Amino acid sequence: MSANFQTPKWVHDAVFYQIFPDRFAKSALVEKPTHLEDWDAPPTPYGFKGGDLLGVTEHLDYLQDLGITAIYFTPIFQSASNHRYHTHDYFKVDPLLGGEKAFQTLLKEAHRRNIRIVLDGVFNHASRGFFQFNHILECGKQSPYLDWFKIHGFPLNAYEGKPRYECWWSIPALPTFNHANPQVRKFIMEVGRYWLEQGIDGWRLDVPFEVKEPGFWEEFRSVVKSVNPEAYITGEIPWDARPWLQGNQFDGVMNYLLTYSLWSFFGGEHLQEDLVGHWRSHGPEYFVKDAESFAQQITLLQNLYPLPAVQAQMNLLDSHDTARFLSLVNGRKEALRLAALVLFTYPGAPTIYYGDEIGMEGGKDPDCRRGFPWDTSRWDMDLRNYFKSLIMIRKSHPALRDGSWEILKAENQWLAYARKHENDYVVVLLNNSPQTNFLEVTLKEFSGEESLKNLLNGEMVKIEGNILRYKLAPYSGTILSQGQY
Amino acid sequence: MSANFQTPKWVHDAVFYQIFPDRFAKSALVEKPTHLEDWDAPPTPYGFKGGDLLGVTEHLDYLQDLGITAIYFTPIFQSASNHRYHTHDYFKVDPLLGGEKAFQTLLKEAHRRNIRIVLDGVFNHASRGFFQFNHILECGKQSPYLDWFKIHGFPLNAYEGKPRYECWWSIPALPTFNHANPQVRKFIMEVGRYWLEQGIDGWRLDVPFEVKEPGFWEEFRSVVKSVNPEAYITGEIPWDARPWLQGNQFDGVMNYLLTYSLWSFFGGEHLQEDLVGHWRSHGPEYFVKDAESFAQQITLLQNLYPLPAVQAQMNLLDSHDTARFLSLVNGRKEALRLAALVLFTYPGAPTIYYGDEIGMEGGKDPDCRRGFPWDTSRWDMDLRNYFKSLIMIRKSHPALRDGSWEILKAENQWLAYARKHENDYVVVLLNNSPQTNFLEVTLKEFSGEESLKNLLNGEMVKIEGNILRYKLAPYSGTILSQGQY
Repeated sequence: MSANFQTPKWVHDAVFYQIFPDRFAKSALVEKPTHLEDWDAPPTPYGFKGGDLLGVTEHLDYLQDLGITAIYFTPIFQSASNHRYHTHDYFKVDPLLGGEKAFQTLLKEAHRRNIRIVLDGVFNHASRGFFQFNHILECGKQSPYLDWFKIHGFPLNAYEGKPRYECWWSIPALPTFNHANPQVRKFIMEVGRYWLEQGIDGWRLDVPFEVKEPGFWEEFRSVVKSVNPEAYITGEIPWDARPWLQGNQFDGVMNYLLTYSLWSFFGGEHLQEDLVGHWRSHGPEYFVKDAESFAQQITLLQNLYPLPAVQAQMNLLDSHDTARFLSLVNGRKEALRLAALVLFTYPGAPTIYYGDEIGMEGGKDPDCRRGFPWDTSRWDMDLRNYFKSLIMIRKSHPALRDGSWEILKAENQWLAYARKHENDYVVVLLNNSPQTNFLEVTLKEFSGEESLKNLLNGEMVKIEGNILRYKLAPYSGTILSQGQY
Repeated sequence: MSANFQTPKWVHDAVFYQIFPDRFAKSALVEKPTHLEDWDAPPTPYGFKGGDLLGVTEHLDYLQDLGITAIYFTPIFQSASNHRYHTHDYFKVDPLLGGEKAFQTLLKEAHRRNIRIVLDGVFNHASRGFFQFNHILECGKQSPYLDWFKIHGFPLNAYEGKPRYECWWSIPALPTFNHANPQVRKFIMEVGRYWLEQGIDGWRLDVPFEVKEPGFWEEFRSVVKSVNPEAYITGEIPWDARPWLQGNQFDGVMNYLLTYSLWSFFGGEHLQEDLVGHWRSHGPEYFVKDAESFAQQITLLQNLYPLPAVQAQMNLLDSHDTARFLSLVNGRKEALRLAALVLFTYPGAPTIYYGDEIGMEGGKDPDCRRGFPWDTSRWDMDLRNYFKSLIMIRKSHPALRDGSWEILKAENQWLAYARKHENDYVVVLLNNSPQTNFLEVTLKEFSGEESLKNLLNGEMVKIEGNILRYKLAPYSGTILSQGQY
């Protein structure tokens, strides 16, 4: 680990909200072309619904009310795909999203509400329309940009036949950059710098493990931190991320290893394996079914990485790349609630994939990218209030953010853990079984007739000596706390 | 004609220099990719030589010394073709040219020298890499930009097979905009406005006759003039341009009808018909061989258009689209000199295609786009000095710019014409025959023992009564003037 590994304190304290820009909200102020899909129609691989950044701006009050402190946007740069991972221009905000002007408005309004903005950087590959690749496509061997990509022959067969260039996952639409070319490297570093100078608060890096050029992400980190030492760098590493979290590359990663355990443990026998699909292979040992293994894995995960990284992880239940949690667990809200309870009481920044808080469902991509229903009659209001409570609790308790971690007990599908930071002490209890359970936990910090407060309903819970006894309904959990918080 | 048709006075007085940006000059300050062609190697259809805008900036002294007051650049926007007529991004200066920064430097330095900048606007078609077209290519029927182009079916067959969309001259690389779409129209108007706001002095419009949407160019004119009433609009209309020159569309056109007469009359039996090619069909009646017809056509041409347009024409010997004049006339410098003499004494702004002044040759595109040789040992210095003299003479004589036009005599391959503006009186004499000729011309303005000054060599020429007698060597000409200029 790098001796002076520091991660931004605001990330330790952050509650992220992940937005897929085409699907969150649509403003009447952004002029749109004609052929958009209905907002509520099932998502398709190529169709656009027309969400935009002024739409997001118009709903910042909703996010602020929910308690969100940071937004991670999947890509917003000019791109000929609805998810915008096929970057056409790294220096432009997509015109469908409202362009640069809408983005600057969003940034200003978000910052005014102390909501930070993290953008998605797709630096492994570009797209067929990206200027330097299009240049080779148009000019062939005589393009001076030949060295920007990894070309094997001509014609390139970009739109028909077998492509004669390296592309990500053999997808011809995604030609892989030649990162060994210093001009490519410089270009990407300039993109990194440019948007930070425009005021963003960090980068989420797409498939960064694909970039194997020595020193690449180290240089990226130093560029980013030179513009803003408090900027956040998180990587999409869906497996053991140790190589990237030693202090010289990323601050955190999208902590999918935690996600797998949440899916598996709370999904239990209801987990939809067809929706899990290939994700299982990224960390099979995290797919655990019993409380003991769950406790072990989510503890082990914290010890895998240096503490500054653990505190700056981007923890998530799901994302635009997975089925939604609720669908993965076959619609069982109680499982979602339990998983959220862990998410919001675990070290690292919890991230809500847009709409999870109101009970949105969705299978594999593209179904997990439905339009957010702004008709509140379609919301699960109890669920939303529950998420809001969890956020408030997390924000009120430093123990939940930067506190220590101790498994108190794990057996028979129930679990208790404690988190402590200075005077702040929190106990989390979970019953992941179909039976009502009487939990009995020894709290070695206690010795007399003390009480803990149930943070979800305000009730006081007595501790007898140092024994906490608590009755939990099937598939339920709670948070107890001592102290002034 | 529009009642209040005015054209920019600076254009009447201008001497244009046309630059093909990839081929004029290359600055060490603009970082280049690796695969550039040798500067002096014969041009190829797809290769790049790496000229750039800082290269132009570094040679503004050369242009200023020559007497240039305006530069017309063939396209400079981001494009995957060496001529940059395949626009990839209308809001970006091509990175190979040094990007926006180099352009701003050029603009500032040019303006400091009172040299104006006119850019090339390609608004009939875009390119396959242009965002909204690429969007359709990538997203197919589900692209919201379907109405931006004229799509007939899918797949588009953009890179293979017969294209299923309208494109210019059936070239799949050049998809034609759907100008009937108000969003396309708005987009193009925004481009027009944007670059004027950036400080350019006018637009040269590429194949504007292809855009048949009613009111399109009228709207463009009003957008342009609203930003800068003195901005120049010239169109590439290689034939009779009356419909566009009535005061509500363009200020002038690239006056190819004059060009044809210059090629034909001065080329005479040496004119290389294979290099003329299809150009002849655009105005066959302008391809004249004798002095009487030449006098008639170049006079008729002035009467074709309203005077403000005549004074704002962009007159030219050749361009990036034609063979070079010198090659068209089989290398005969005397023909080039005579044509230049007419060019610089004719109403409308003379335009020098880069390098004509030092004797560059070149056949049809791409051969007419060679790299400018900065090694002065390769220059025809006499020719350059001759061009410089003609420029100085034109700039010193308002008669040559805004003066009247009178053919004094035309017979036996020789020609005399007079131009007059207030006190300024200029007579041009040309002998386009292989014999020495004694010209005798009646100057009805004169009546006594007066003299005219030979502006090319300073000699005084006596007029006897009102008869001017002058001996001209084979294929030569001169300019005489009375008055204080």
